[in-house]
Amino acid sequence: MENLTPKKTHLPPPNGASPPKASAHRLSLYLRCLEPLQVAKQETISSKRMAEMLGIRDAQVRRDLTYIGSLGQRGIGYSIPSLIAAIRSALGLNRNWPTILVGVGNLARALIRYQNFREHGFEILALFDCDAGKIGTPIEGMTIQSIGDLRSTLKKVHAELALLTVPAEAAQSTAELLAEAGIRGILNFAPAVLRLPKSVRIVNIDLAMQLEQLAFSVQSAALV
Amino acid sequence: MENLTPKKTHLPPPNGASPPKASAHRLSLYLRCLEPLQVAKQETISSKRMAEMLGIRDAQVRRDLTYIGSLGQRGIGYSIPSLIAAIRSALGLNRNWPTILVGVGNLARALIRYQNFREHGFEILALFDCDAGKIGTPIEGMTIQSIGDLRSTLKKVHAELALLTVPAEAAQSTAELLAEAGIRGILNFAPAVLRLPKSVRIVNIDLAMQLEQLAFSVQSAALV
Repeated sequence: MENLTPKKTHLPPPNGASPPKASAHRLSLYLRCLEPLQVAKQETISSKRMAEMLGIRDAQVRRDLTYIGSLGQRGIGYSIPSLIAAIRSALGLNRNWPTILVGVGNLARALIRYQNFREHGFEILALFDCDAGKIGTPIEGMTIQSIGDLRSTLKKVHAELALLTVPAEAAQSTAELLAEAGIRGILNFAPAVLRLPKSVRIVNIDLAMQLEQLAFSVQSAALV
Repeated sequence: MENLTPKKTHLPPPNGASPPKASAHRLSLYLRCLEPLQVAKQETISSKRMAEMLGIRDAQVRRDLTYIGSLGQRGIGYSIPSLIAAIRSALGLNRNWPTILVGVGNLARALIRYQNFREHGFEILALFDCDAGKIGTPIEGMTIQSIGDLRSTLKKVHAELALLTVPAEAAQSTAELLAEAGIRGILNFAPAVLRLPKSVRIVNIDLAMQLEQLAFSVQSAALV
């Protein structure tokens, strides 16, 4: 029955188009599945196997991979090292992304020590806070700086991305400072909805909201 | 021009239906915007103002709010306390959700101290690890337990949700233990794709993946 309805996923992607957001998200997921296989020296993989790992249709996998120009070989599948390189390139991960962090509380301290960031090319190079009691404190080879030093430090470290881990009530004004100082992307952990110029990209990680969505999903499942 | 295309959002919701995932996500967002207004003793709000706060269309807001049976009053708007109560009820947040945590590393230590969880009804009641060197260590009034005690402890604390903060390579096997012991929802911080029975709901927070998506978004914006 499924084939009777034309699906967006069956249309060819426009030439040279960058992948849409949903595909970009799945490309990141493919990367997570492929990286351990590369470590285990596996050389090739089929779209069917990738689909199974993620619990999606293999047509979806093949469609997503056309965006990176990597079409695989019938009977052999996709070369894992080539696939990883092509996905990383499509996602802009074939370079490092120097990153700063603003708001050094408990969550920040965990993020500063989070190995996965550095392993994926996101190195935290400077820490900022507005609490005079914290400024000057050393953490992991860095020293917490005053938010007033933001602009001059950014000139040195050339960071385009920022982790924002300030309290909700400080989030909007701090985000505006970051935008003015030249930050292009903010990973926002503050439970607040930021309004910034469109040129600054925002990804929100509101941890309590994620738990709320999980609870909603569990409750909905119980009602079925 | 917009009105020429029939939009899903203009269809009435089925009677008594629980909101779809996208609406549920926005309901959580509305809650984040409304909570500070309630603290500030504001009594009513218009759908237009809520739409402005989130940068979406007000027809979308009104449509989402029909799911919670709260239709507002023309010229007055929505009562903020009623709206908060109705949204919390629709999302299953009019009760507490006892929660456990498995894998006590740096990120876990930050999550255990994260005030927003408790404030939103998610209290972490038990901690587990498989590292014998950690078992017995006290944290925030709890003691890290062996993963072997999972089932007996769950009988006492009646938790349905778990935060999973183990390393990627331990995530699938630990998630299976959680599912077998009766956990119904997992907030998975491990950078791994979990495969579990459909009865167990999963929300993934892969922090490096979120940074990848942010980098992709910044890169795409630069190409336009």
